[in-house]
Amino acid sequence: MPILFLADLTPAALATWTSALQEALGDEPVVTWTGDAASAPAPDVLADVEVAVAANPRPGCLARLPGLRFIQSAWAGVDSLLADSTLPQVPLARLIDPQLSSDMAEAVLGHVLILHRQVPAYRAQQALAQWAPLPQPRLAERRVGILGMGAMGQASAALLARTGFAVTGWSRSGRGAMPGVPVAGGAEGLERVLAQADILVNLLPLTVQTRGLLDARALARLPRGAGLVNAGRGDHVVLPDLLAALDTGQVSHAVLDVFAAEPLPPDDPLWRRVDVTITPHVAAPTDPGSAARAMAANIARWRAGQPVAGLVDRAQGY
Amino acid sequence: MPILFLADLTPAALATWTSALQEALGDEPVVTWTGDAASAPAPDVLADVEVAVAANPRPGCLARLPGLRFIQSAWAGVDSLLADSTLPQVPLARLIDPQLSSDMAEAVLGHVLILHRQVPAYRAQQALAQWAPLPQPRLAERRVGILGMGAMGQASAALLARTGFAVTGWSRSGRGAMPGVPVAGGAEGLERVLAQADILVNLLPLTVQTRGLLDARALARLPRGAGLVNAGRGDHVVLPDLLAALDTGQVSHAVLDVFAAEPLPPDDPLWRRVDVTITPHVAAPTDPGSAARAMAANIARWRAGQPVAGLVDRAQGY
Ligand SMILES: NC(=O)c1ccc[n+]([C@@H]2O[C@H](COP(=O)([O-])OP(=O)(O)OC[C@H]3O[C@@H](n4cnc5c(N)ncnc54)[C@H](OP(=O)(O)O)[C@@H]3O)[C@@H](O)[C@H]2O)c1
Ligand SMILES: NC(=O)c1ccc[n+]([C@@H]2O[C@H](COP(=O)([O-])OP(=O)(O)OC[C@H]3O[C@@H](n4cnc5c(N)ncnc54)[C@H](OP(=O)(O)O)[C@@H]3O)[C@@H](O)[C@H]2O)c1
Repeated sequence: MPILFLADLTPAALATWTSALQEALGDEPVVTWTGDAASAPAPDVLADVEVAVAANPRPGCLARLPGLRFIQSAWAGVDSLLADSTLPQVPLARLIDPQLSSDMAEAVLGHVLILHRQVPAYRAQQALAQWAPLPQPRLAERRVGILGMGAMGQASAALLARTGFAVTGWSRSGRGAMPGVPVAGGAEGLERVLAQADILVNLLPLTVQTRGLLDARALARLPRGAGLVNAGRGDHVVLPDLLAALDTGQVSHAVLDVFAAEPLPPDDPLWRRVDVTITPHVAAPTDPGSAARAMAANIARWRAGQPVAGLVDRAQGY
Repeated sequence: MPILFLADLTPAALATWTSALQEALGDEPVVTWTGDAASAPAPDVLADVEVAVAANPRPGCLARLPGLRFIQSAWAGVDSLLADSTLPQVPLARLIDPQLSSDMAEAVLGHVLILHRQVPAYRAQQALAQWAPLPQPRLAERRVGILGMGAMGQASAALLARTGFAVTGWSRSGRGAMPGVPVAGGAEGLERVLAQADILVNLLPLTVQTRGLLDARALARLPRGAGLVNAGRGDHVVLPDLLAALDTGQVSHAVLDVFAAEPLPPDDPLWRRVDVTITPHVAAPTDPGSAARAMAANIARWRAGQPVAGLVDRAQGY
């Protein structure tokens, strides 16, 4: 039975992905479909599909697979997948790939170190030809708050803590703690984590609960002049509220990797803010090779009736 | 016998330093002198001085101490101290302070991660409102070359290697290697290190041999599009050659923390380069508290006839 790779990607990306998947899946044939009606696989092929790998599938495509029993997402975030109201009610796994987590941790560490060392402030001084060394807190005094302590949050927290930062996490359940990294849970926990976050890193999944979480109220809870790194989803942040907080200096600098609409439109005024660093959703791009191996292993687990990694709780939305 | 603290610093810095030194030295009285003739200690006090702690002493001041037997520098770099032709020929120690080394390593890691993740290129795209994810090499594929494998270089190399970069060092003797970090020595070693440095970090001391080392020839040896972090001394870099290399794209971005003249003059065209990040000599500012403790311990070693840390070889200039 073929594995259907449903992917609305560029032709080059599609080719890379298809061959990575085929290599990882070995004998199992991979059928690739962009979702385009003209190039749809034959109805009998679609009827045979039990397992689909989803990378930006067009809405409605998965519903055309009567025999579908398992969906494996090629991304860590399943918010756009779940936004498809026709999505079949079969088990769905998000991508869990150690390579992805370590890529994210590496990006987060870089941005947090640069905020810690006040490079954005020095860049502002550079624009004014101003030479003015600033008082510099020690690494161990710098409190980093991490929203979301799943695969991304835990890898980032571990690397930040190992480097010497004072890290606190926040998750729904309070899960995700590790030596040196306490994790708070629930609404009351959020207040405490925000109040202590000199640098706040968002690595939450986008759900009904987390959409718009970083609004004026939340940003006001941060210590004055806090830095923000958003590598979760654009819709976690209420952008006008963030811009207002940047204007007053409540937030000193924001590194934004994700946006409500991607690509960020060329006429968006965000591009021109010197207190915002924009990166085009590259904190942790999925690596086709390592992701294909992780997905193949997960599909094998599903086939063997073993617990799959990253099983999505539809009620929770992640 | 008093310890003379010779320091041409701001009044605030002078007060902080003096009390940190006094606390670290305990019973031994500290006499502070800016070098200003009007505020000079009495001649009999100066005559009694065996040990001087030097933080930007004015040229000629140390020569006025007939009983001087040991000079402890408050900085890691002794190039300006050695530039004083009247400097007495007594043992001179540069500052060795683990806090300083870890501060440097932390700054270097931050800048190297940001160069690795191509943030300067994304910043250039941001200025053009351009959304274009770039191919991203893995951390383990990114070759970082470190010039100077002393206290600063070793701490930086260790942290970079621990984070996953492929690190190679260069030192005069070939000293400074550690597990996972080979070190090349001599002129031929330099060629090899440069040729493999996707990101080059300069942590050399300024000496007759190292002045102007990073000239057109050296920069041309780097892989095309290399990044540069200079936290050694400004005079290591032949600035017109660096600007030419930036203009052609041979060097993609330079993070400069040190300059031939500091503060960098307000009219210097360097301030306006988007391919240069300027920080005002803050990679590893000496911490008065930890430095005073390290210097007091070194002075105690010298008194006890034990080997002192950071003894300067005058012939080598560091
Ligand atoms: N920018 C990029 O390149 C990039 C790359 C990969 C992923 N991402 C984003 O990162 C997100 C997280 O990925 P992941 O693999 O770490 O996800 P994950 O393993 O599912 O972890 C999600 C974490 O968020 C917490 N959480 C969820 N809802 C919450 C709520 N309402 N309140 C408090 N905490 C809540 C969870 O709490 P519990 O532990 O209690 O369940 C868990 O700790 C993805 O969804 C995606 O949006 C971005
Ligand atoms: N930007 C800042 O905030 C800041 C802060 C502190 C220090 N610094 C700078 O960093 C410099 C280094 O400090 P450090 O404490 O690491 O010095 P260090 O312990 O004396 O180490 C110097 C290193 O450079 C090597 N070296 C010297 N001359 C060389 C030559 N001609 N060719 C090749 N290698 C040579 C030495 O080689 P061997 O091992 O063979 O002797 C040694 O590995 C200081 O001098 C200062 O300029 C800057």
